[in-house]
Amino acid sequence: MQKGIVRLSRRPSILAAASVVGKEEALGPLGEAFDVIDKTDRFGADTWEKSESEMQKRALRCALDKLGWQDTEVDVMLAGDLINQCSGSNYGLLEYDIPYFGLYGACSTVAEGLTLAALLYGGGHYDRLAVISSSHNCSAERQFRYPVEYGGQRAPTAQWTVTGAGAFLLGEGRGPYISEVLPGRAMDKGINDVNNMGAAMAPAAMDTLTRYFDESGKSPSEFDAIVTGDLGYEGSEILCDILTSHGYPVRPVHQDCGLLIYRRKEQDKHAGGSGCGCSGVTLAAHFLPMLREGRMKHILFMATGALMSPMSLQQGNNIPGIAHLLHITTEE
Amino acid sequence: MQKGIVRLSRRPSILAAASVVGKEEALGPLGEAFDVIDKTDRFGADTWEKSESEMQKRALRCALDKLGWQDTEVDVMLAGDLINQCSGSNYGLLEYDIPYFGLYGACSTVAEGLTLAALLYGGGHYDRLAVISSSHNCSAERQFRYPVEYGGQRAPTAQWTVTGAGAFLLGEGRGPYISEVLPGRAMDKGINDVNNMGAAMAPAAMDTLTRYFDESGKSPSEFDAIVTGDLGYEGSEILCDILTSHGYPVRPVHQDCGLLIYRRKEQDKHAGGSGCGCSGVTLAAHFLPMLREGRMKHILFMATGALMSPMSLQQGNNIPGIAHLLHITTEE
Repeated sequence: MQKGIVRLSRRPSILAAASVVGKEEALGPLGEAFDVIDKTDRFGADTWEKSESEMQKRALRCALDKLGWQDTEVDVMLAGDLINQCSGSNYGLLEYDIPYFGLYGACSTVAEGLTLAALLYGGGHYDRLAVISSSHNCSAERQFRYPVEYGGQRAPTAQWTVTGAGAFLLGEGRGPYISEVLPGRAMDKGINDVNNMGAAMAPAAMDTLTRYFDESGKSPSEFDAIVTGDLGYEGSEILCDILTSHGYPVRPVHQDCGLLIYRRKEQDKHAGGSGCGCSGVTLAAHFLPMLREGRMKHILFMATGALMSPMSLQQGNNIPGIAHLLHITTEE
Repeated sequence: MQKGIVRLSRRPSILAAASVVGKEEALGPLGEAFDVIDKTDRFGADTWEKSESEMQKRALRCALDKLGWQDTEVDVMLAGDLINQCSGSNYGLLEYDIPYFGLYGACSTVAEGLTLAALLYGGGHYDRLAVISSSHNCSAERQFRYPVEYGGQRAPTAQWTVTGAGAFLLGEGRGPYISEVLPGRAMDKGINDVNNMGAAMAPAAMDTLTRYFDESGKSPSEFDAIVTGDLGYEGSEILCDILTSHGYPVRPVHQDCGLLIYRRKEQDKHAGGSGCGCSGVTLAAHFLPMLREGRMKHILFMATGALMSPMSLQQGNNIPGIAHLLHITTEE
């Protein structure tokens, strides 16, 4: 029988996290909480792709500095992004002398990376691990939709790719800990509207959460928050409706990073934020501090990814989704 | 101090492997050894990208059939490819109800996947894992260079992307086992010639192999083969020269999958084969049988990847490389 939830007996602590964001994110409700802000969105680079790499570099440096760690104290790093061939991570992390596992999980990459890192720590082979992920609005727009200079009209269900990079350092220490992980299965429910990623990813979120509750016997009310990465308004509504109808009333505790990161009325971001950076910086700057300060004790963190490419859509494919889930807790 | 070689006390057996290839590979010296061949290179699909997905699907199905396993007996699968957003894997493996970790390691993906899978098995959390990777000459040519219809002239140092998919199933059983792993660090030594990937990847191969020999105290002659993924003629020469000058005479035991897969004179593949599929199908169809049949006992398998994208080169970046290493042995 296929293994489902993995409960870690050797639980990694999330020792430090860092967030690097651009102007729009700085203007949002979490603006004060981010570590590094560049209101030009350029981070000193002359192309958007290099800007994104620079964000990853700074996010990891900031996290290392918080612990006073040198590069060479980190056993392995796991990272990914949305740019073709994951070049945001490949170039951004080049200066670090750390063994590197490249990931592609679309917007689920932070959760995929934390899941794998928790398992590698839990297995006892590594003691200090780093997870990094990013997205940049301008590199994503020109790759997946139109260059921003084109000024294309956005659909009401479209989301706004977050300019942000999150870095996380895992090892031995005090909580919050990653205590359980449940990797996601790719799901294709026939959605093919690139302007409605929330709907494309909601079925995968539902599959993973349902498997978690079915197997664990827990109920949504046992968690202070059930956090999704970037379902936005559309996907969040779908997820809450379907899960409630399946006997899991998640709505009272559900929070979506894509809905937390921008001001709905003032910032005109349509269906909310999205991208690898969305869940990364919101976890780093909002949820982990809530856990550390004792304002939350148990959260489920689940980031979803849409596993398409512009070419796969041109060739008539649907948009499959995936969702990886972690249970993060301060319980000793 | 950063962890280097991981010696696994719980060693996974590579229980089964499957190889799916196209016409050119079937005409090569290993042609008889591959499991599935489609001499049209199309695999029943109407685009090259869909052909590549179909190859991944068939490779995993073929491996599962060899063991009589159902999808739902596999705990997790790890997969990746070269296509933007890894859509070869994302779509090819959609029909499998198996939790999925997407990887991007360029042509090192098979070694990255086997390394992570061995660590996940070694940690005791999973019992049955699958690793899948692929490349397709026509999807790679149009993405990284020119569409094949264009008929672009190839440079003498250029390599030929292998049309191939390899799938591996890991679990408890008899050897060959993965006994040690050493993940690679990304290296940039200033190479920026997209028609000389071997030279771009050789420094990473050198870094990983040197770290392995330095730390283990072993010498190249203790292995029946030191296998690289796709350095080709150019990269292999560079690697052997540099390692020999560093006191590690690898030339007598070095073999490169990119040099094994095509007939040098008859097939006109310039500097040799390359791509995620190159090392995947050669390991599956050539080296694992050699180990199973007792003709080899210890090999180092190291696949290298070039971590660039067409856009990163247009923006003036170099081509970083990475190399992940595994020690595969039949020793009990």
